[in-house]
Amino acid sequence: METGRLETFADGVFAIAITLLVLGIGVPKPGEPLGPALVAQLPTFFAYVVSFLTIGIMWVNHHQLFTLIGRSNTTFAFINVVFLMFVAFMPYPTLVLAARLSDPAAGDTVLATVLYGANMTAIAVMFNVIWLYASSRGGHLMKKEIDEEIRRAGARGYQYAPLGYLLVTLIALVSPLLSLALYLAYAVYWVLPVSGPISGTRP
Amino acid sequence: METGRLETFADGVFAIAITLLVLGIGVPKPGEPLGPALVAQLPTFFAYVVSFLTIGIMWVNHHQLFTLIGRSNTTFAFINVVFLMFVAFMPYPTLVLAARLSDPAAGDTVLATVLYGANMTAIAVMFNVIWLYASSRGGHLMKKEIDEEIRRAGARGYQYAPLGYLLVTLIALVSPLLSLALYLAYAVYWVLPVSGPISGTRP
Amino acid sequence: METGRLETFADGVFAIAITLLVLGIGVPKPGEPLGPALVAQLPTFFAYVVSFLTIGIMWVNHHQLFTLIGRSNTTFAFINVVFLMFVAFMPYPTLVLAARLSDPAAGDTVLATVLYGANMTAIAVMFNVIWLYASSRGGHLMKKEIDEEIRRAGARGYQYAPLGYLLVTLIALVSPLLSLALYLAYAVYWVLPVSGPISGTRP
Amino acid sequence: METGRLETFADGVFAIAITLLVLGIGVPKPGEPLGPALVAQLPTFFAYVVSFLTIGIMWVNHHQLFTLIGRSNTTFAFINVVFLMFVAFMPYPTLVLAARLSDPAAGDTVLATVLYGANMTAIAVMFNVIWLYASSRGGHLMKKEIDEEIRRAGARGYQYAPLGYLLVTLIALVSPLLSLALYLAYAVYWVLPVSGPISGTRP
Repeated sequence: METGRLETFADGVFAIAITLLVLGIGVPKPGEPLGPALVAQLPTFFAYVVSFLTIGIMWVNHHQLFTLIGRSNTTFAFINVVFLMFVAFMPYPTLVLAARLSDPAAGDTVLATVLYGANMTAIAVMFNVIWLYASSRGGHLMKKEIDEEIRRAGARGYQYAPLGYLLVTLIALVSPLLSLALYLAYAVYWVLPVSGPISGTRP
Repeated sequence: METGRLETFADGVFAIAITLLVLGIGVPKPGEPLGPALVAQLPTFFAYVVSFLTIGIMWVNHHQLFTLIGRSNTTFAFINVVFLMFVAFMPYPTLVLAARLSDPAAGDTVLATVLYGANMTAIAVMFNVIWLYASSRGGHLMKKEIDEEIRRAGARGYQYAPLGYLLVTLIALVSPLLSLALYLAYAVYWVLPVSGPISGTRP
Repeated sequence: METGRLETFADGVFAIAITLLVLGIGVPKPGEPLGPALVAQLPTFFAYVVSFLTIGIMWVNHHQLFTLIGRSNTTFAFINVVFLMFVAFMPYPTLVLAARLSDPAAGDTVLATVLYGANMTAIAVMFNVIWLYASSRGGHLMKKEIDEEIRRAGARGYQYAPLGYLLVTLIALVSPLLSLALYLAYAVYWVLPVSGPISGTRP
Repeated sequence: METGRLETFADGVFAIAITLLVLGIGVPKPGEPLGPALVAQLPTFFAYVVSFLTIGIMWVNHHQLFTLIGRSNTTFAFINVVFLMFVAFMPYPTLVLAARLSDPAAGDTVLATVLYGANMTAIAVMFNVIWLYASSRGGHLMKKEIDEEIRRAGARGYQYAPLGYLLVTLIALVSPLLSLALYLAYAVYWVLPVSGPISGTRP
């Protein structure tokens, strides 16, 4: 089975999930003064930016990962569906977090950030599952030209990502906003042009 | 007529319907304690997972079915539009069911599950129609290399799916949650790597 | 300029507009008895079916029209954007109409149906504009193999569609539900396998 | 890295953002007389048209720009994600502006128009960044056949667009509706068949 339609489907889910994020930003009511309302929404905008860039970078990574994968099968398609289930879920924890951050009296910002980070961690775990399945049995879904060294380097790269997300999630116990900023930094870090075998494919 | 643009359109509808599911999960209000609110939403999350995986697996099946189909025409495109009408409708019964399951005092959980199952059954029926039309007149829309035996095996496979969904729907009369769990099990079952001619194409 | 990306973009807008229709169906509140609520929503379901099948058939027509078109340019892309603006607008008149039909005491069902029909008519007009522009200057955007006779037959076919939609819209002054049923009949009529040069491309 | 999947992803985000605009048009309640409600919504319809056509033309420009670009890399993909973040954000300032224009007593129409224009300006700036990055280092991402003259002409064209959007935004201080009309005129202007090297690629 070719990977073409799987990539199209994944691109669709990524594109929709990333574009639905904007629906979560409540429009200030006509009666409400716009200036103060926009200022109060600043944490919401921040959450929008972090989620958008994170999903965007996850898309870049998925994209690059698939430049190494040449074949698909039913199980692999299903693994990707589970992966996309967490990607498509992103608007929910983003909204929950934004609602808590916009209203200091709302409370539970720590729990909201943990929920947000838990979903991110799940996505990072699923990246591992995708990679491990595709590269298993001698890389049965990989393009022929990928050698053993790249397979191992890839596995190492993906292995550490869930740990990173987990750590950033734990920082939420101290400061939710710092945790959110670190998610952003973490995402941008993967985009830096670093050397190495499949440098661009880390989640 | 090539099937390329029909597949792109179907992929789009599948991807959007599956991603819109998250919009149905209500965000707990800032004043509300987050922990208990999330616990109360557990049935909603469960319905999200069942619907997401089911639509995802239906997409995998549609995807695989089209690896056997080489041509399209206006009638076939229309049949697929009707099929997609039920796929795109999925968020509605999912929300209705989730709303009833989240609030034990709401009542009518049986009717909500029957509505949910009726839509699933309709999708399974439409899978039959797609298959029967494409394989009719000596398989006039199939790729040349498909032989008579596969056509018959495919017909048998699709034939039983609506019956399966109907039975699981009837179980809702006893226990809506069990019915929901069986939909999930049923969906996952089709993903198992089973042998046979077009094993992966069963709905 | 190739038409590939224009078709992908159009497919995307069609797929999203058609899938967003479901968001307009209000979920009965948990307290509300589900049975009577679903019955009261029957006109909404009917409007959903009519709009879904109509947009779906418009997509089929757009799809087939583009099998005749081989090139694009900036003006042609812009014409298609205007066409898509009316397609993407469809959920709004559908919701307005459904809201009026679901509540007999709401009134203004005639105006709501006229609004609905006006948008349909605008889409039919834009189909003409697309065809006329592509086939103008000796068919400068058409694939070479299209001959003069087909171009004229196409023009005739598209010419009558806005008139048809306009007439069905006027029937709303007598009976909105009959008008809605005729939109459905009209849409299905175009799908019938009729003979003729570009039979499948009529809007 | 090929640009194919980047274009598919961008097309998806453009198509979704443009189609989500309709969700912002509130459906008049069943009790409300429909005629006066539609008249009151005229500014909302106007904002819908301006945003739809503007996003549509931005898509045309992005589309044409990519006919010149032959390669991609991680940084370039990330730049496009940031660009798409502002495109996907468009429904928000459109809704804020429409809400203020529909209710004369709402106030803050100037601030709402400035917010709207600021996002447009940001998109024009990002078009520059995309062009500058792709054409930097001797046009390292451009197709080989692009010569130095076209690269310079392109840079000049993109350079002036943010300035234009900024000026139109400032006109909002005098008249928000005039500003909105000028955005529309500005968008349509780029679609006119003008001569020049990459005439169609200006934002």
